[in-house]
Amino acid sequence: MSYKKNNQYPKDETGFIYGRNPILEILKSDNRTVNKLLLSKTARGHVISEIISFAKSKSIAIHNVPPEKLENFPNSQGVAAEVSPIKYKDLKDMIKQANKADSPLLVILDGIEDPHNLGAIVRNCTAFGANGIIIPKWRCAAVNATVSKASAGAIEHISISRVANINQAVDKLKEQGFWIAGTENGVENIENVKLTFPLAVIIGSEGTGMHNLTRKKCDFLISIEQSDAISSINASCASSIILYELFKLRKTQKCNKNEK
Amino acid sequence: MSYKKNNQYPKDETGFIYGRNPILEILKSDNRTVNKLLLSKTARGHVISEIISFAKSKSIAIHNVPPEKLENFPNSQGVAAEVSPIKYKDLKDMIKQANKADSPLLVILDGIEDPHNLGAIVRNCTAFGANGIIIPKWRCAAVNATVSKASAGAIEHISISRVANINQAVDKLKEQGFWIAGTENGVENIENVKLTFPLAVIIGSEGTGMHNLTRKKCDFLISIEQSDAISSINASCASSIILYELFKLRKTQKCNKNEK
Repeated sequence: MSYKKNNQYPKDETGFIYGRNPILEILKSDNRTVNKLLLSKTARGHVISEIISFAKSKSIAIHNVPPEKLENFPNSQGVAAEVSPIKYKDLKDMIKQANKADSPLLVILDGIEDPHNLGAIVRNCTAFGANGIIIPKWRCAAVNATVSKASAGAIEHISISRVANINQAVDKLKEQGFWIAGTENGVENIENVKLTFPLAVIIGSEGTGMHNLTRKKCDFLISIEQSDAISSINASCASSIILYELFKLRKTQKCNKNEK
Repeated sequence: MSYKKNNQYPKDETGFIYGRNPILEILKSDNRTVNKLLLSKTARGHVISEIISFAKSKSIAIHNVPPEKLENFPNSQGVAAEVSPIKYKDLKDMIKQANKADSPLLVILDGIEDPHNLGAIVRNCTAFGANGIIIPKWRCAAVNATVSKASAGAIEHISISRVANINQAVDKLKEQGFWIAGTENGVENIENVKLTFPLAVIIGSEGTGMHNLTRKKCDFLISIEQSDAISSINASCASSIILYELFKLRKTQKCNKNEK
């Protein structure tokens, strides 16, 4: 289906990103090439002005289009952009870079298949200062426009490594001095965790948790205290609490990178 | 559009709830009348067995339907039910009931318009033991099948009051001895809050926060500590951290219900 035929741009086509925050953050971050900007003729507001000003300063072509041309992008907020794909980071480089931090923290996502959850988790990782995210090539939402939008553009500000095998990545992390924490209900309370070492924390899928083999590779398991009214909260909400607690712990505990 | 015409049940029609957890929780909670259960002929699994067993014990009519009949319910997981609407609680009754708790906590939602966010927040409220949720009639997602599904059925286990005016509800809460906490970025850290009084906490919308008039009515404002890489996290994720922290504080501090 060509967009020329029905006068609309195709929905969620690879290469297009939409929404004000995601596009503003792409323009700010300089990680991706923006080929062109599609701007609804009726779009107004200070974020739109900022987007136009960034685009002009980078000599990006701005196409002023009728609003109906963007209708196929869900909740586009009047702006879409054709951009180069996200650049995944090599795992080795990510580990090297993370190890430069005072208290290295990487986040491994094991089976997060909902793009809204993935976007929200990326946003949490950025907000609470994680040094990178590791996702598997299979059984994980692709980093597309929906993820970018759900992350409110945070995806442009954190390193993401996409690996063929989570368990092999865990082995590499262990070799490089990282301890591996799994998350599970009803085990050691996260507040009691000692963070005196570089850490990789695994967030499992909401339905089934971590894969069994991955779980076995964990050095320890942590959980969030909650009332027992229901069994669990949403995966992105759980990740926000875990990353928030780790953020606080990392500020108060001294990390010894050579402990392991 | 009649479902008889196209052989499908209508999408998100008032009266229908779909998904395994929401329906199981409705059957468990006894808050709503289930008129009939639509079960895909191909649906299997232990939750389905539990649903069938509950339905049989309550003499609910089970219609075994071809899977395509449920296609219009997004991600129905092979089961839908025609149910009576959710019963909202009178605000006065909710306050009275909350005041029976050792450390009363009510949650006010000011402008949460996304049903997925609303459902996730309801789930957080239940997980962290809030005594009830107050939502406005306007500028708030309706409590429909999407919210029920996003809450994973938690909506059946918490009292919800729907009020015409949030500010008048805040006045009533104050009269009844509640202190009002607003949530905002960059103010008093939630960990330092004294919870020696019944509390109502306001969660504002992600885009614009609390309404100005509502903000002015707050006794104090609280915020979550985070790195300054991006300005905010998703509203449901923020609520999970706030409710988690309040859950912990309420366990360690003695509430004096006559303090105000």
